[in-house]
Amino acid sequence: MKKYLLAPGPTPIPPAVSGALAAPIMHHRMPEFAELFKGVLEDLKWLMMTKNDVITLAATASGAMDAAFSNFLWKGAKVITVSAGKFGERWSEIAQAYGMDLARLSVEWGKAVTIEQVDQAFKENPDAVAFFVTASETSTGVAHPIAAIGDYLRKNHPDVLFVVDAVTALGIFEIRTDDWGIDILVGGSQKGLMLPPGLAVMSISPKAWEFNKKSDLPRYYFDLAKEAKSHKKGQTAYTAAVSHIMGLRQTLDMFKAEGLDNIFRRFQAIAHGMRQAGRSMGLTLFAPDSPSPSITSYVAPDGLDGQAIVGKLKDRGITIAGGQAHLKGKIFRIGHMGYMDEGDMMVTLLNLEEVLTEMGFAVPAGAGVAGFVQGRAQYLKSH
Amino acid sequence: MKKYLLAPGPTPIPPAVSGALAAPIMHHRMPEFAELFKGVLEDLKWLMMTKNDVITLAATASGAMDAAFSNFLWKGAKVITVSAGKFGERWSEIAQAYGMDLARLSVEWGKAVTIEQVDQAFKENPDAVAFFVTASETSTGVAHPIAAIGDYLRKNHPDVLFVVDAVTALGIFEIRTDDWGIDILVGGSQKGLMLPPGLAVMSISPKAWEFNKKSDLPRYYFDLAKEAKSHKKGQTAYTAAVSHIMGLRQTLDMFKAEGLDNIFRRFQAIAHGMRQAGRSMGLTLFAPDSPSPSITSYVAPDGLDGQAIVGKLKDRGITIAGGQAHLKGKIFRIGHMGYMDEGDMMVTLLNLEEVLTEMGFAVPAGAGVAGFVQGRAQYLKSH
Repeated sequence: MKKYLLAPGPTPIPPAVSGALAAPIMHHRMPEFAELFKGVLEDLKWLMMTKNDVITLAATASGAMDAAFSNFLWKGAKVITVSAGKFGERWSEIAQAYGMDLARLSVEWGKAVTIEQVDQAFKENPDAVAFFVTASETSTGVAHPIAAIGDYLRKNHPDVLFVVDAVTALGIFEIRTDDWGIDILVGGSQKGLMLPPGLAVMSISPKAWEFNKKSDLPRYYFDLAKEAKSHKKGQTAYTAAVSHIMGLRQTLDMFKAEGLDNIFRRFQAIAHGMRQAGRSMGLTLFAPDSPSPSITSYVAPDGLDGQAIVGKLKDRGITIAGGQAHLKGKIFRIGHMGYMDEGDMMVTLLNLEEVLTEMGFAVPAGAGVAGFVQGRAQYLKSH
Repeated sequence: MKKYLLAPGPTPIPPAVSGALAAPIMHHRMPEFAELFKGVLEDLKWLMMTKNDVITLAATASGAMDAAFSNFLWKGAKVITVSAGKFGERWSEIAQAYGMDLARLSVEWGKAVTIEQVDQAFKENPDAVAFFVTASETSTGVAHPIAAIGDYLRKNHPDVLFVVDAVTALGIFEIRTDDWGIDILVGGSQKGLMLPPGLAVMSISPKAWEFNKKSDLPRYYFDLAKEAKSHKKGQTAYTAAVSHIMGLRQTLDMFKAEGLDNIFRRFQAIAHGMRQAGRSMGLTLFAPDSPSPSITSYVAPDGLDGQAIVGKLKDRGITIAGGQAHLKGKIFRIGHMGYMDEGDMMVTLLNLEEVLTEMGFAVPAGAGVAGFVQGRAQYLKSH
């Protein structure tokens, strides 16, 4: 039986990327590696839409999130974090681990932060030096308004460090790092980049490097200034995640062949399809107002356990995700990122229709699948 | 032309491990992963010869070395590091990055630390709380006497935290973690474990956990107490390096099939062969007194540039390593670890004989290769 992985990461690895990962490993101190790595860094800038320095780390994105504090801030620094789900809350946890003066901007899970809320947080914390937010909050399926926040910060708080978790955005939907004034962008390998977990990517603005000069927190493995210096020579400070870089070369080639706008349009169309599929099946979307292009979350129908829905799909070879923390059992989530396509969505919906019907929430056969096709077509017609 | 990688890591990946790495990726929050991971942790204990907790990190070993300070010590803690090469010096650098009171036990590069020197260091620093050493100092080709140091510490300083970098030892030569009283053992994926870079392993003793309670350094990504708690459930605190764990399962299966004693004997025999090969070619061994079983370093003959020797072998498709820091150009190093075997050594020696002769240091054809076979046979006969 063919298996399907539609959890929000790790995502399936394309055969061509598996092939690149299985190519003979290179020694990281040889000119061949330096040449490969320099090209990868150049193309990462293209992907991240930035002229800023781009750094890779042999770690998952959580390591880069950690480094975004330890390299640019100091004990007692006042920071605002948008906490609207598990990953926004991770920013808060790291701030606390480093003894910062945390102003948590709490937003109801399932909602996006508004510019009014951001403005209010700055009014209450005029001494805030950094602002942390999540582009796609995977735990709820919400996309926060990164462009609008960037615009607000540029006009009102141009000196504040603007840090964005783009882990489930990079390579899936548009994040214009430089146009939106993002000082630090963080991504990870196992989502849109279609690689195994273990490589983090970051872009770092000149303004962020000014913060780095004032930062006095202890660090060694995640010393980004040291990494930036090595990266300029096509090297890494410690052993590079060589295989990941070899695989990333393949991913970037695939991205370049398709074109960013085409990729973004493709995922937006799939996302619109998944939302219409939900509505057509009679399901309630958990994040209808500002849904993420990379994941769709549905409310479990009254009387049904979301975890049981996930479990029954698992029995059919399809891995999706349930709710996290207080949302456990209440919602279920289907990822559409990386190497997941229309076929994966339709197989999942076909089985979801049957599972829901089995569990007593009757769905007319084909309602979800047809809804997907219609929602997708409608988006493509108008974009 | 077939290519050969004999640098001291990253090392070649066996086809069976490449296959395991290319298998469909698993979601790290699923029971299948937990089951796989628990088995891997059990077998890592077997490999590390310990009953202590074993933890994996999505990072290279340098990340684990960093964590060995940030999780167990505190600012101003007096620590002794054995600095006898680039990797010993890394311990010193991390101690300084965390503001510790560093007592650097400097040993001439190419020599192993002696118990007399260790004792002297403790006499000069009776308040030292931790001792850091490297099992195989890859930059020089020296093996430090870990068993004897463990014995000395148990008898004289039982409360001192004993931390060993076993990055180029694990899976290559014997490190008896529990018998030798090692509190923290650090390993990495891209050496004896025959995996790509990006996974670190650590064992942590109950005594080390007592240190952990007193440690107040800030940490988040490398929070080992949090990881240990997750590991007990077959989970990781953040996204697991899923592919690496899948590959490690294959490596451990290969290790178990061969047996640790057989593996250690095989590499010891190769190492003895490489030393005899050097002598038979008229080369001087750089570390004759306490050579490492995982790497052999040779002094470049008078008037020859070590880097040029490395370069000429590179042109023939063979990657070995030159000297680092002040040894650049003065020595060259050939690794024998992981998926490197007798054939790899003999091809390298065949070409090395020709390259040296070409450069004006005449080696009778076959002298190195025959020396290798003889040195290896002699070891196997007596062990």
